[in-house]
Amino acid sequence: MARDMRVQRGSGYRGTLWSRIRRGVGRLTGTSPARAAMMIFAVTIAVFCSLLMMPWATASGRSSVFHEALFVATSAVTVTGLTPVNTADHWSFAGQLVILVGIQVGGLGIITIAALLAISVTRNLGLRTRLVAQEGGISTGSMGETGQVIRTVVICSAVVEAALALVLIPRFIQLNDDILSGLWHGTFYAISAFNNAGFVVHSGGLGGFGDDPVVIWTIMVGVFLGSLGFPVLFMLWRNRWHVRNWSLHTKLTLQVTLLLMVIGTVLYAVMEWNNLSTIGEMSLWEKVQNSLFASVNMRSGGFSVVESNVQNAETMLISDALMFAGGGSASTAGGIKVTTIAVIWLAFLAEARGDAESTAHGRTIPTSAVRVAVSVVAMGATLVLVSTVWLMYITGLDMGRPLYESISAFATVGLTSGLTEDLPPEGQYVLAALMFAGRVGIITFAASLTVRQRSRVRYRYPEGRPMIG
Amino acid sequence: MARDMRVQRGSGYRGTLWSRIRRGVGRLTGTSPARAAMMIFAVTIAVFCSLLMMPWATASGRSSVFHEALFVATSAVTVTGLTPVNTADHWSFAGQLVILVGIQVGGLGIITIAALLAISVTRNLGLRTRLVAQEGGISTGSMGETGQVIRTVVICSAVVEAALALVLIPRFIQLNDDILSGLWHGTFYAISAFNNAGFVVHSGGLGGFGDDPVVIWTIMVGVFLGSLGFPVLFMLWRNRWHVRNWSLHTKLTLQVTLLLMVIGTVLYAVMEWNNLSTIGEMSLWEKVQNSLFASVNMRSGGFSVVESNVQNAETMLISDALMFAGGGSASTAGGIKVTTIAVIWLAFLAEARGDAESTAHGRTIPTSAVRVAVSVVAMGATLVLVSTVWLMYITGLDMGRPLYESISAFATVGLTSGLTEDLPPEGQYVLAALMFAGRVGIITFAASLTVRQRSRVRYRYPEGRPMIG
Ligand SMILES: [K+]
Ligand SMILES: [K+]
Repeated sequence: MARDMRVQRGSGYRGTLWSRIRRGVGRLTGTSPARAAMMIFAVTIAVFCSLLMMPWATASGRSSVFHEALFVATSAVTVTGLTPVNTADHWSFAGQLVILVGIQVGGLGIITIAALLAISVTRNLGLRTRLVAQEGGISTGSMGETGQVIRTVVICSAVVEAALALVLIPRFIQLNDDILSGLWHGTFYAISAFNNAGFVVHSGGLGGFGDDPVVIWTIMVGVFLGSLGFPVLFMLWRNRWHVRNWSLHTKLTLQVTLLLMVIGTVLYAVMEWNNLSTIGEMSLWEKVQNSLFASVNMRSGGFSVVESNVQNAETMLISDALMFAGGGSASTAGGIKVTTIAVIWLAFLAEARGDAESTAHGRTIPTSAVRVAVSVVAMGATLVLVSTVWLMYITGLDMGRPLYESISAFATVGLTSGLTEDLPPEGQYVLAALMFAGRVGIITFAASLTVRQRSRVRYRYPEGRPMIG
Repeated sequence: MARDMRVQRGSGYRGTLWSRIRRGVGRLTGTSPARAAMMIFAVTIAVFCSLLMMPWATASGRSSVFHEALFVATSAVTVTGLTPVNTADHWSFAGQLVILVGIQVGGLGIITIAALLAISVTRNLGLRTRLVAQEGGISTGSMGETGQVIRTVVICSAVVEAALALVLIPRFIQLNDDILSGLWHGTFYAISAFNNAGFVVHSGGLGGFGDDPVVIWTIMVGVFLGSLGFPVLFMLWRNRWHVRNWSLHTKLTLQVTLLLMVIGTVLYAVMEWNNLSTIGEMSLWEKVQNSLFASVNMRSGGFSVVESNVQNAETMLISDALMFAGGGSASTAGGIKVTTIAVIWLAFLAEARGDAESTAHGRTIPTSAVRVAVSVVAMGATLVLVSTVWLMYITGLDMGRPLYESISAFATVGLTSGLTEDLPPEGQYVLAALMFAGRVGIITFAASLTVRQRSRVRYRYPEGRPMIG
């Protein structure tokens, strides 16, 4: 974006179409990087929607209907994984390739844009706070310019995805594929996993690989790494296990991620232990492995070995909570993000202890961070509530499945209770809007709240303390 | 409490039982007013539970089983209104009288204790903040000592309840009661309404009075006044419509209460308009009247003209949200309280505008108020989530009804999806614990968070800003 702006200012060619476009983009990004991010995502989705409308994109050779193409394009670019049609059966190879490219573009896009917004936030914060924002792991000091961010993100993604593919491809070939199919499946799942996309290209989903530890663990590692977020991966890559050098953001992200992963695994295992439709008949080790897989994927991956709606209803409610929590900031995971939860928890701890400020790892968390965190949670809860009511209204169902599907869309998880397939177009539009809001909305919302110029306080009102509770 | 402590210090009689009790109470309240409040409530519930276990308390003359007596005693003292047995059919007149006394004691108790906790908070806050706390409408300056608080609360309750009874008694006599029954019914509903208890003494509930505007409106006014809370009533009584003199607490409470009331009425009317089981067949005016009645009672009254489980599922979800919100602080209404919502909303507004501080009505809201508010919401959401999962587990139901019943218990609303009657004892214990936590827990939790000594900051950590969203 910064590059665009430089072109805009320096350009002598005022007449050509190209320079006009660049100027337009420059003006857009100059006035509001957050709005620009939304525009870029909307345009990208529109492009992939058009591609998926093509007759060559489907297996049958007949064009998809608009609302299905829009839904799948949105789902791919927002790396959600919800889909009203079976990816393996409905689309041709070309169609599946379009989806895969959509996932890769969307995943890279969201990481890059989040990172760039963080830099733009840093720029607007002034020198003292800029040093502070370096604690977020992203800053001009450590990252350099726009171009360098993009280059680092792309290299980082490519390296991890290549590593995953190198494990998956031989395994798929070994299991039952020919070489070409193995290459395709391995590549697809590597990209789908690291981007937390949750799309599958087997018509039975991952059901057939539930007992294969190589496939299960590789996908799990990919999803886990992807869900940490670029700032954390970058920090780990630079500092390895020198924990002292880790940023506050990295420490908090890892702590909450691991905590939620353990909680999810234990709860899933306890509640599904004897459910014959899920893990009830498995061996002890497989029960643990599948509980861990379910837990990791609940918080955003969206891959599942068993269908969600054969789980107990209370397992789905626990999933609701973990899906809403989501993964790391500037990652391909969605939700309200783990650092949001950390900031709220630290605020609570500070109150309980009677401390005037909330602190963690030798750092003071600024008050405005608590307010941004609360705003993000309130926005998410409101969107999910409205969507759930609407889906209940048009389907006539009790709240379990509409809530699950709404949270899955908002948090771009992609786990499904089977409702997405059954929804009429007006329901699919709502979920598509929710995916968009959950993906692009949350990031830009938080960034624009953080970046707002603090108006200088000219006069200060006396304090007023309403009773609470 | 203050009086008890003086007795303790000044007393020369060390031997008598009475002075020992007073000394014990004094020590208890001296160390932690919050813990004392919980003890007092627990003991009160135990007493009423014993009374309801007596053979003379039931219509059949056989003792109630323990878990039912405990549940009804808890429901009465916490002014909730949930009950596993039909109040009119199961209990004798004496049993119903015990329940009514339980409601009155519980209602007065909760208002008084909340007010006294507010004073104790004020005392601990130091002079500057004490002036601030007067904005809450409660302070030693304006209210005087413990005894005076209790006297004012009792007089205030008695006056409003008498006024309600004076309207209801003649109406019940006129409708179909003899004079004694009319006196009893009028008194019962007056007390039940003002204390937001939601208990009814007609075996068909209020269903028979749904088309009687006198009964409906009188109960509605009683519930509304009770839900505002004592500080607001006191402020209104002292300052009438001189809005300039109202405290911040009063203004925020009235604003949010009216806003939620209107939202609830509109949503209820829209969603139930054509539901033949609820308001579908009524005249336009009756539809509006009953929607308003439902809206007022959702936020804590707990009276209902129609059964909740004949409502649309999405209406119940909206109810969930409004029940969770609740009424005013230091009132007989439960929930997280309207000022909690106001503080969170103001924090969001401040962020969106880019203000460094959140302000309302010419007052700055202290940062710690935001953190207390967030803590209260997080505590409530966690309790409700755990209870819902547990109820789903023991009943095997989808989440709609378990969630509704859990929120109704936590927010001491008393609306029921019919689940309470069907629950096994272990389910009833969970709901009883939730009523207790929602009633006493929230108040003492918020007070003890607010009252904590702020530890002086000896050294200050540098700021660290994790990414959010
Ligand atoms: K996903
Ligand atoms: K109630």
